[in-house]
Amino acid sequence: MSTLFQPLSTLSGDVGAAIGESVTFDADRALKLDSGGEIKPLTVAWKTYGTLNAQKSNAFLVCHALTGDQYAAGTHPITGKPGWWQTMVGPGLPIDTDRFFVICANVVGGCMGSSGPHDVDPATNQPFGLSFPVITIRDMVRAQAMLLDHLGIEQLFCVAGGSMGGMQVLQWAASYPERVFAALPIATAARHSAQNIAFHEVGRQAIMADPDWQAGDYLSKGTNPRKGLAVARMAAHITYLSEAALHRKFGRTLQDREALSYRFDADFQVESYLRHQGSTFVDRFDANSYLYITRAMDYFDLAADYGGSLAEAFRGSKTRFCVVSFTSDWLFPTIESKKIVHALNAGGANVSFVEFETDKGHDAFLLEVPEMFATLRGFVDAAAEARGLPAKARA
Amino acid sequence: MSTLFQPLSTLSGDVGAAIGESVTFDADRALKLDSGGEIKPLTVAWKTYGTLNAQKSNAFLVCHALTGDQYAAGTHPITGKPGWWQTMVGPGLPIDTDRFFVICANVVGGCMGSSGPHDVDPATNQPFGLSFPVITIRDMVRAQAMLLDHLGIEQLFCVAGGSMGGMQVLQWAASYPERVFAALPIATAARHSAQNIAFHEVGRQAIMADPDWQAGDYLSKGTNPRKGLAVARMAAHITYLSEAALHRKFGRTLQDREALSYRFDADFQVESYLRHQGSTFVDRFDANSYLYITRAMDYFDLAADYGGSLAEAFRGSKTRFCVVSFTSDWLFPTIESKKIVHALNAGGANVSFVEFETDKGHDAFLLEVPEMFATLRGFVDAAAEARGLPAKARA
Repeated sequence: MSTLFQPLSTLSGDVGAAIGESVTFDADRALKLDSGGEIKPLTVAWKTYGTLNAQKSNAFLVCHALTGDQYAAGTHPITGKPGWWQTMVGPGLPIDTDRFFVICANVVGGCMGSSGPHDVDPATNQPFGLSFPVITIRDMVRAQAMLLDHLGIEQLFCVAGGSMGGMQVLQWAASYPERVFAALPIATAARHSAQNIAFHEVGRQAIMADPDWQAGDYLSKGTNPRKGLAVARMAAHITYLSEAALHRKFGRTLQDREALSYRFDADFQVESYLRHQGSTFVDRFDANSYLYITRAMDYFDLAADYGGSLAEAFRGSKTRFCVVSFTSDWLFPTIESKKIVHALNAGGANVSFVEFETDKGHDAFLLEVPEMFATLRGFVDAAAEARGLPAKARA
Repeated sequence: MSTLFQPLSTLSGDVGAAIGESVTFDADRALKLDSGGEIKPLTVAWKTYGTLNAQKSNAFLVCHALTGDQYAAGTHPITGKPGWWQTMVGPGLPIDTDRFFVICANVVGGCMGSSGPHDVDPATNQPFGLSFPVITIRDMVRAQAMLLDHLGIEQLFCVAGGSMGGMQVLQWAASYPERVFAALPIATAARHSAQNIAFHEVGRQAIMADPDWQAGDYLSKGTNPRKGLAVARMAAHITYLSEAALHRKFGRTLQDREALSYRFDADFQVESYLRHQGSTFVDRFDANSYLYITRAMDYFDLAADYGGSLAEAFRGSKTRFCVVSFTSDWLFPTIESKKIVHALNAGGANVSFVEFETDKGHDAFLLEVPEMFATLRGFVDAAAEARGLPAKARA
């Protein structure tokens, strides 16, 4: 496997220089995969925000969602936009970079520097494409644990994330309970539902239906399944919002016109918005990574690794949990968070649960939800005190 | 416009002979369209079930949904499967063909014999493709009214339909109140929501992304955008079911295997099911018709034709309405039916409303819901008595 990140031909700018830091592990430290395969050598790319204290006790791992990357804060090098969790990670924010050493790593299978299907297979000198091994959420977390070893960090003060990031949080707490002091799984589930698998399958089929996908070999063939990936993104994007949010934002308002066109133009603002979401996404994301990461989410079923009992995944855990859901999230509805809470309670864990009233849908975890900020700040501050971290300097 | 239905090259069997009856109107009876255009000559294909009585007072119009056709009952000539409303239309069923003369016409824009984008443009001797005019729900209903004139039926005893069929029911009651004695709009809305427009736009973009779509000219180019249409169908199909139904039917059950494949096969039954839904759909449906009919639904906003007041659409109506919704229908949720009911009440109409408790989602209107059958039978029987139709013969 190549030790160099292969920038996507379609990406603008010097992506290779923009991934932040990265480490390629020696070949004797292969990433062992749930599939039975391995990634060797493994590369993990990450960004950090804030400063690690002398005791290495203030490390705060942030896990990204399906289409995220290590740019939780700061400015994204491709889009030029703020990091995906700009609302939560930064000086004075709930995940306070004046106080914590925030680490965010690109997941294995991703396309921002960590090992993924775009890597060059040394056996063929061509990108792996679909010969890259299928990975799981647990594989992603294993790679992050290797990164922490590399950084010399034994225990995380906290691990937090929404959606697929929340799946990683749960996996962290289950796989490495002693390494996680506090855990903040947001808008997530301990297993992916049939409906969510179905939506992912639509996205994958849209990508695979694009002849430019070239059976996964588009990088070596010099094509890019832009249209298929855009359709996948459009379908997924609807699931990230609520019906109420779509109605509030767009309703049936027409886009740049006074009357219906009686054509197939984007008459409605919601159509124009979706097309924009699709077309901008393909500039920053790799189609095969989309296949691999959706597959990892679909495969996620934490209880399955513990004899079917989710409570067993957390038995005897000393981690402090705060489980968060949103009333209008129909992709990861509150019932899924409650299942996690029930399992944590049954496993004897320390857990609090908050459901926030919002019409913003699943994406609420990325957006301005003031009540959420106040609550999460409270949870983080209390956990920091319990961990013996110095109180936050008052302004 | 060709007066002959052009069978899709991809359809098996003698579709031309299978459309049931059809009429092509004289050129001086063009279908005037909301777009300002017209369809000339207009062809309408339909099927009937049961016998028209001497007074022509037992005509029961059934309106089909997006992907339906005139085969509400009987055996579908392409799929060999029962008609789409086999649960509701037939001898002894709520829409009793021993008692009523049931008419079901293929909508304008459709692909089972009525005028649509597959028709041959006499100016070019090629299928219209995207040069076929964009049509609306009101255009569909106008064409049906012309069919009724052709059949010599002045007033319908009842008009019924679910989903887009329900939109036609509402349009019928608004446009031709004196021609509709009773109306049964099921699982529908008086206007299409932003979320529903968004899902339709994903489907259209999936079709248009397929290079075999050929900018709409696939019939003349000898191609067929099967993959794009299949993706469109897959995305739509998810919206027809509820999360609970998907969980009950499939959950995370694997398809024909004991363990995860760690490949991109259809590991999960829900994936296999969706792929099957997509691939069988393209054997019976035309991609351009899918574009036109989804567009018609998106454009539907009944109140817009009445100064923004839905109540005005039904002001003074003597039609007896029964509005039906399902608890788990998230595509046309109960709130949309309630808006219709409020408007009917405000307009002084005679209306009853029933919400059925079911986990079957939007598709419940096509499925076995015993409470629905009993209720709709009661509504139909009472309306028949009010209309002076003879009481049903008892077995």
